[in-house]
Amino acid sequence: MTKIGILGVGTVGASVANILSANADIIEARAGKKIVVKSGVVRNLNRDRGVNIKLSNNPMDIIDDPEIDIVVELMGGIEEPYKLVKKALKKGKAVVTANKALLAYHRYELQELAGKIPLMYEASTAGGIPIIGALKNGLTANHIESIQGIMNGTTNYMLSKMIKEGANYDEVLKEAQKLGYAEADPTFDVGGFDASHKLLILASLAYGIDAQPEDILIEGIENINQTDVAFAKDFGYEIKLLGIAKKVEEGVELRVHPTMISSDSMLAKVDGVMNAVSVVGDKVGETMYYGAGAGGDATASAVIADIVDIVRGNTGPMLGYKRGLEGGFELLPEEDIVTNYYLRMEVDDKSGVLAQITDKLGKFDISIETMLQKNHKNESRVKLLFTTHKCTEAMIQEAMLNLKRLDCVYGEIAMIRIEK
Amino acid sequence: MTKIGILGVGTVGASVANILSANADIIEARAGKKIVVKSGVVRNLNRDRGVNIKLSNNPMDIIDDPEIDIVVELMGGIEEPYKLVKKALKKGKAVVTANKALLAYHRYELQELAGKIPLMYEASTAGGIPIIGALKNGLTANHIESIQGIMNGTTNYMLSKMIKEGANYDEVLKEAQKLGYAEADPTFDVGGFDASHKLLILASLAYGIDAQPEDILIEGIENINQTDVAFAKDFGYEIKLLGIAKKVEEGVELRVHPTMISSDSMLAKVDGVMNAVSVVGDKVGETMYYGAGAGGDATASAVIADIVDIVRGNTGPMLGYKRGLEGGFELLPEEDIVTNYYLRMEVDDKSGVLAQITDKLGKFDISIETMLQKNHKNESRVKLLFTTHKCTEAMIQEAMLNLKRLDCVYGEIAMIRIEK
Repeated sequence: MTKIGILGVGTVGASVANILSANADIIEARAGKKIVVKSGVVRNLNRDRGVNIKLSNNPMDIIDDPEIDIVVELMGGIEEPYKLVKKALKKGKAVVTANKALLAYHRYELQELAGKIPLMYEASTAGGIPIIGALKNGLTANHIESIQGIMNGTTNYMLSKMIKEGANYDEVLKEAQKLGYAEADPTFDVGGFDASHKLLILASLAYGIDAQPEDILIEGIENINQTDVAFAKDFGYEIKLLGIAKKVEEGVELRVHPTMISSDSMLAKVDGVMNAVSVVGDKVGETMYYGAGAGGDATASAVIADIVDIVRGNTGPMLGYKRGLEGGFELLPEEDIVTNYYLRMEVDDKSGVLAQITDKLGKFDISIETMLQKNHKNESRVKLLFTTHKCTEAMIQEAMLNLKRLDCVYGEIAMIRIEK
Repeated sequence: MTKIGILGVGTVGASVANILSANADIIEARAGKKIVVKSGVVRNLNRDRGVNIKLSNNPMDIIDDPEIDIVVELMGGIEEPYKLVKKALKKGKAVVTANKALLAYHRYELQELAGKIPLMYEASTAGGIPIIGALKNGLTANHIESIQGIMNGTTNYMLSKMIKEGANYDEVLKEAQKLGYAEADPTFDVGGFDASHKLLILASLAYGIDAQPEDILIEGIENINQTDVAFAKDFGYEIKLLGIAKKVEEGVELRVHPTMISSDSMLAKVDGVMNAVSVVGDKVGETMYYGAGAGGDATASAVIADIVDIVRGNTGPMLGYKRGLEGGFELLPEEDIVTNYYLRMEVDDKSGVLAQITDKLGKFDISIETMLQKNHKNESRVKLLFTTHKCTEAMIQEAMLNLKRLDCVYGEIAMIRIEK
């Protein structure tokens, strides 16, 4: 029998305990051993957790318990769980965590500290989808060319609504909050930070890159509006908040931002709160993994898969590499990222304006690929929407600053990156 | 260093050798050891295989070689590789096979014989997609409610063409043959047999069911025509050749047949030669796995993933279960399968005919859900297309026999099952 202790018995923790009990038969048949939750730790003992396990409010009750083989960390936060996970590893206990923030900041220290002790984290990224397993074990023959993922259900729900129903950003945010898909302060989701944590975890498995959220380009969906959505539709794109990791000659791009992708791609077809990760390997080509990215039971499914792997003795190297890669991969500086861009700006409706703008862009070696001009009724300004040929992030940012300074351009210039 | 021997150096075998050499750096970093192909076995030594390894035409040169740790079986056929895999296991060598037919018939004997020796087969099902790993390791917390998969690229290519381009069956078959997607004798693919082998492998992982192709319902796509395709479009369906495993109260349904599925489902969006498997777990909900189902490099990617897992000591129980499941699952007899059906028939264009047909169906407790009548110009017969509410396979088969006997019905009645 394997005994588990759960640090943090919230929605996911309760699901872990309840599934281990409800599906005990099949889990034992697969693992070869009974797996039992011995106890859980919560901050507030007075709240009912809907579980039938012993609860304490002292994490050391689990960490010091010699009967407990596996510590499941589901507390949230970063430094507090980091301290506790380190203590558990030092006691020789295997650890399973769903904590993406902990891993976004401390995965390499934890790998070092864990050594041969299993530290598993399938649930940290894309909930119930076994994407960690796919990258860690399933695609090991490949140099990974790119990872593109819808790794945040909240924003995908919101963008799907904006696209399918023509709703505006504020409306869909309110609705997402009402349905419990978005927090009262939605910044972590809509700002792309949640997705960035997951992207960093996948980037370690694919490229062995030790970056933190502050090191990479992160943009949220707050500025997307119906003009952009309509443009995307007209030109055969969907707008998705993607986490992107991509190997280019000079290094590895890591970035999270709203992205226009071809409506024909499989990722474009992923609607609502669902997650999906597309991985291109140099030998296998594109594979895609789709499923629920959040929710108690889906996330618990991944936590328990890790527990079963530990019981089977099936854990593999924590971050996918057993040895460093000779001539390993480097994070490409943000400004060197090269892609296509969509720009939206408001300009004077008079002759010569377009020439001024293309001239300015030309100074930065940026050329226009497609253009759409939207006239307002009875107004002296028009909306100018266009996409560019490939250029660097540095160039487009500099060009946008310069365009803004033109007398014929009003207000902010909106930009969405395009992946072809 | 781990040394490999390859039985059968055809397209996939050559890819395995070439990728192990081309991607040696990343594979060694992930596995923690160099992996080298020591030798290969082919029937005909005179043909150039495009590989840089020692070749012999005697399988025992690999099986008896004490330096070889892992035997990769890529020969094709059933009884010959079965004999050789048994010999390799008896010598204590780990085995990796991509041979679906071998597993469709002998997986339980091989599991028994292998005992603690790794026998891996990721490449046997859906090529480069790590679906075996997902079911074996990623979804272990779940009772699997259903598996529905596009597991044959040839037929998906053909059906996609028929649907998108309005081409007819014979045309697309010829084109698939020209492109090398279909064999000169296409029966194995278009008849559903290839998909059935893969389905049986997945059914073992999900349900522990020891069935063989002869035990289950297998139907091919040979009778699909443009009338069916047009009907499907009008009623919001796509037609896909699916392998389906489904847990119902009385047992597990296993079946391969053309299926009408909702155009909104993720599987419906999988076009061309790509494969995809949708798995519904009772806790995780739907997850889907998408990618190339065939091709030398994609299949080799899965073979090498297995090799790396063996080198890491990461293999898990061969068929997913370490112990039998108390009150395990039973294969549901074909005639007890319950689903919705689409029927196409040619009938007299006169009053009373519809009444005769609905009356006959009523005798078998089958009621019609939707109906479409297609009149031919200047003809006395019409095409009658309709879908039924749920009924058993036994009832629909019996009803079809009886309908055929009616004077107002001409020729064969075509039937396609519907999954909602």
